[in-house]
Amino acid sequence: MPAVSLLTDYGLADTYVGQLKGAILSICPTARLVDLTHVVPPQDVRTGAFLLWTATEAFPPGSIHLAIVDPGVGTSRRAVAAQSARGDVFVGPDNGLLGPALDRLGGATCVVELTNSRFWRPAVSLTFHGRDIFGPVAGHLAKGVPLTQLGSALERLERPFAIPLPRRTADEIEGEILHVDGFGTLITNIPGKLVSAAFTVDLKGQRIHGHQGAPFESVLRGLPLAIVGSQGLLEIAVREGNAAAVFGARVGDGVTARPPVD
Amino acid sequence: MPAVSLLTDYGLADTYVGQLKGAILSICPTARLVDLTHVVPPQDVRTGAFLLWTATEAFPPGSIHLAIVDPGVGTSRRAVAAQSARGDVFVGPDNGLLGPALDRLGGATCVVELTNSRFWRPAVSLTFHGRDIFGPVAGHLAKGVPLTQLGSALERLERPFAIPLPRRTADEIEGEILHVDGFGTLITNIPGKLVSAAFTVDLKGQRIHGHQGAPFESVLRGLPLAIVGSQGLLEIAVREGNAAAVFGARVGDGVTARPPVD
Amino acid sequence: MPAVSLLTDYGLADTYVGQLKGAILSICPTARLVDLTHVVPPQDVRTGAFLLWTATEAFPPGSIHLAIVDPGVGTSRRAVAAQSARGDVFVGPDNGLLGPALDRLGGATCVVELTNSRFWRPAVSLTFHGRDIFGPVAGHLAKGVPLTQLGSALERLERPFAIPLPRRTADEIEGEILHVDGFGTLITNIPGKLVSAAFTVDLKGQRIHGHQGAPFESVLRGLPLAIVGSQGLLEIAVREGNAAAVFGARVGDGVTARPPVD
Repeated sequence: MPAVSLLTDYGLADTYVGQLKGAILSICPTARLVDLTHVVPPQDVRTGAFLLWTATEAFPPGSIHLAIVDPGVGTSRRAVAAQSARGDVFVGPDNGLLGPALDRLGGATCVVELTNSRFWRPAVSLTFHGRDIFGPVAGHLAKGVPLTQLGSALERLERPFAIPLPRRTADEIEGEILHVDGFGTLITNIPGKLVSAAFTVDLKGQRIHGHQGAPFESVLRGLPLAIVGSQGLLEIAVREGNAAAVFGARVGDGVTARPPVD
Repeated sequence: MPAVSLLTDYGLADTYVGQLKGAILSICPTARLVDLTHVVPPQDVRTGAFLLWTATEAFPPGSIHLAIVDPGVGTSRRAVAAQSARGDVFVGPDNGLLGPALDRLGGATCVVELTNSRFWRPAVSLTFHGRDIFGPVAGHLAKGVPLTQLGSALERLERPFAIPLPRRTADEIEGEILHVDGFGTLITNIPGKLVSAAFTVDLKGQRIHGHQGAPFESVLRGLPLAIVGSQGLLEIAVREGNAAAVFGARVGDGVTARPPVD
Repeated sequence: MPAVSLLTDYGLADTYVGQLKGAILSICPTARLVDLTHVVPPQDVRTGAFLLWTATEAFPPGSIHLAIVDPGVGTSRRAVAAQSARGDVFVGPDNGLLGPALDRLGGATCVVELTNSRFWRPAVSLTFHGRDIFGPVAGHLAKGVPLTQLGSALERLERPFAIPLPRRTADEIEGEILHVDGFGTLITNIPGKLVSAAFTVDLKGQRIHGHQGAPFESVLRGLPLAIVGSQGLLEIAVREGNAAAVFGARVGDGVTARPPVD
């Protein structure tokens, strides 16, 4: 039975996550539920999409990924499920949340609008489609219900936004900070494979040296280092420190990578 | 095997929740543990009772619900387990925490004081009855030990408080805000079934329009709307916004619902 | 199949914990994962070691404990696994994190450096050994791979620090505050078994009375009490209150326990 990963903006102080899990277990009592995160900033679909993109590849192919950041709940936005080329099935609102993660797992091979209310909770509230639609649907998927039974086929998902791509010129790559993680590490949108073995990154008027394979021991504690991080993206870290604090850097700040001057 | 839901005020920065789970798994290694929330404000039994009330109905009937908000630990307050008419079993301190949720699932059909130390951890500490009494008892229940073996029968649970009921007059319903959720939505104690299809809610000198079936599209982004929320209660929300911030509203603030003036 | 407990400083706002779990489930899809805590202060190995020490005894003997607080990731610090006399297996960086918990479960009977890359994720990043090494190794252990296959034997673990021991004199015991929990309770390093049935504790110029078996009812609400807490250590609590706030006390503050003057 596939694992069911869960990503929401429900927070940890309410019981919404618990109710969502109860709804899944009401359909599939033996479902294996795994939290990705539930503290996506409320209704911040872009951050949710980035976080979902970071997480799903590490799961066994064929997993179910239930993602709910849904400012449009209670409007006419569509509820969807989509299978990726790798075999994972994503369930959530059709508001851009699922697209980057689906692309990373090979793109969508089958998209369905969740229109078959037979797989929902009998009474559907206006505001909690996690418990009433998405959770029960994920439970049925975990039990083996085929995706195509959940509703009517769609051509494609909505694409209201994309993770921004860096710009390449002859000499350099201009990117930006996508995410600041809990350690204060700055994750950029520059793929590590685009830069040379050794490189530099300019951030807020400062130059940071980097190397594809540089260990943290190459700098003293408290000093910055550019590395290729766990997502394959350039990251700016401070050894045993907090790069966001050291540089006063935020999501959206520009970064420029180039080969080091010899 | 039934799911075991967990609600505590243990927080996430200590390992109390982990120890509680370890204690359950020490008795029943295959127990399915599901967190409701662990950030109930410390020792706030009323908030814990409300949150437990919101969550348990979504679980499969027959689940075990372990709830611990226990300012009286280390005093003579009783430890109890109680079965609801729906078949769920609640375990926790007898301080009012369990009552509202039990009532929602049909009321208690059997109440037991946890006096049989055979089902406890051999050494019981003064302060951590979750790990030492409640968790092991929940583990034994998950393994199939009958409720009645856990101790001596009680007539009823303590009832130190109740979720406040709204007051009805000929024209209107006076209620209050029970809870502010993580989205800033204001959850009142007024059941949606008591108001007309269209209605208004007065809050802090402002009037908010509502409708039983109103989608969020009926208001512009950033504007308020009164709805019937996922618990069947009137809620005041702001479309893609935070109603608590917009209204400066808090738990306990009064609200008045009435039919709209034609 | 043994439970796999998880303690990290990954935080809850990123998906690092989710990716770690995905990596374990990719090896062992039926692993039972139990969170201890993921909000150890970033890179604070001492606090992580204390929290791990508090938690593992409550688990079934033979559990797997995966602990990652790893400021040295990306340096030459060793990755290790070690079996305790009780039968539990600990997995993590060799930086002192695992030692106190191992000692509490009887000490290490077998220590291995994780050098066998056959049990790792094929591509290992510079910064996320949880997902790429420790998680897969824990998954293989959960599946039954013998510890000794994971790498080469080590004589012992690194011991860069220890939980500080109290000093005993003829009349008194001088200790310190090890931890402030989420309730504000002050946990000292003085074992309860070292003090007499009745005792006093001096903290920041104030004297608090205690008793081995004192229930909280022995003081009024809001008043302090010294007790023997759930870890067997002297703790200073305030009945239904927050001792850290009442005393303005912090980790490292000195405490002195002595028999009461008759």
